[in-house]
Amino acid sequence: MNKPIFYHAGCPVCVSAEYDIINLIGKDNVEVVHIGEDRSRIEEAEKAGIQSVPALLTPGGNVLHINFGASIADVKG
Amino acid sequence: MNKPIFYHAGCPVCVSAEYDIINLIGKDNVEVVHIGEDRSRIEEAEKAGIQSVPALLTPGGNVLHINFGASIADVKG
Repeated sequence: MNKPIFYHAGCPVCVSAEYDIINLIGKDNVEVVHIGEDRSRIEEAEKAGIQSVPALLTPGGNVLHINFGASIADVKG
Repeated sequence: MNKPIFYHAGCPVCVSAEYDIINLIGKDNVEVVHIGEDRSRIEEAEKAGIQSVPALLTPGGNVLHINFGASIADVKG
């Protein structure tokens, strides 16, 4: 099974949610992607249906938008 | 350590998120509370800072609002 992917952009809301998600799921059980730094993965996140960060993409392809840090449009700048 | 608590109100967004959270964290590692049915726990959820459901309250006391199903005001009716 694929790992869930946690997309974030380094914002305070993102950092807080990352901490919580890693505590809940386990560091080895989630891939963390900083789309503010790794901009090549913005398109992949958008195609998966991610509209804002932080967000968790489940192995089944569902998107869990967690709180609200920044829109994808904001990240793209 | 306390378990995280997943608050929901039976809405479609809630049911979908519940499925995902249980898959990610494990059924035995999260308490699921339906505040539409167990209305005595609405106040507790509000005090914890939950503004909408579905939401996950972490053992550390942080609230992760997950997507958006219904506001607490909607649940109170």
